[in-house]
Amino acid sequence: MHLSLQTDYGLRVLMLLASTARQMSVDEIARSYGISRNHLAKVAQRLQSSGYVETSRGRGGGLRLAFSARELNVGTIVRDLENLEAFVECMSPQRNMCPAIGVCGLQNALGLALGDFLKRLDSYTIADLVPDPAWFSQQLGANIVTPD
Amino acid sequence: MHLSLQTDYGLRVLMLLASTARQMSVDEIARSYGISRNHLAKVAQRLQSSGYVETSRGRGGGLRLAFSARELNVGTIVRDLENLEAFVECMSPQRNMCPAIGVCGLQNALGLALGDFLKRLDSYTIADLVPDPAWFSQQLGANIVTPD
Repeated sequence: MHLSLQTDYGLRVLMLLASTARQMSVDEIARSYGISRNHLAKVAQRLQSSGYVETSRGRGGGLRLAFSARELNVGTIVRDLENLEAFVECMSPQRNMCPAIGVCGLQNALGLALGDFLKRLDSYTIADLVPDPAWFSQQLGANIVTPD
Repeated sequence: MHLSLQTDYGLRVLMLLASTARQMSVDEIARSYGISRNHLAKVAQRLQSSGYVETSRGRGGGLRLAFSARELNVGTIVRDLENLEAFVECMSPQRNMCPAIGVCGLQNALGLALGDFLKRLDSYTIADLVPDPAWFSQQLGANIVTPD
């Protein structure tokens, strides 16, 4: 049981953008975290299509948050990026082959447990995850503009 | 984000054994759920080494619960079978490569959310997941002894 890389990287992108006033390219973000540029490019596209980030082209262009970090709720983002229907087979009617459906209490118990997991994340915004933006930005070397 | 097959199948084995008074072989359990016998054999070994089930050989032998279903706590079993240290990279000090460690609030938020997930599961026993054992057993065809 682990958070998908899409969600993990998605949250990391939003946190890094929240830590700096400037726009950052996918290359810069990938270098800051030491992660795959190709994988991050797909995550950035998803963040853009979901409306969390905006992009601009050209010199000084890149990604920036589409809202303030205080407006970006972590529970909402995780619900959006994670495929929670696949948490167990029986939560996905299209995939379910388990013959115990209807006589088993596991789906309900796991559904309530997942609800509690998400409810906790609803109490955080991206700003809460970056309590000291300047320190965060410095630690990741994001305060230094690097050529692409 | 999904429950590992080991945990999913482990809970299914315990539920099926809780629904019937007789012992069941790995082959019978695999047929009842329509799942891979080889994968289930590894799960059964893990359940035995963790002390949840006992096995006996010979005619009429097989797996049986080592405790009553009321004594088998779901939260305890999930903590035991899932590798929750791998939930995100930074929760595993051996694996962590993220440079944001120490300046990022994500690990703490996810840790609390996982705690809430497990706390909910602590309120269930295997018996709670099989509210009508006779119906469960019948639905899975486990009330009929089949030759291996």
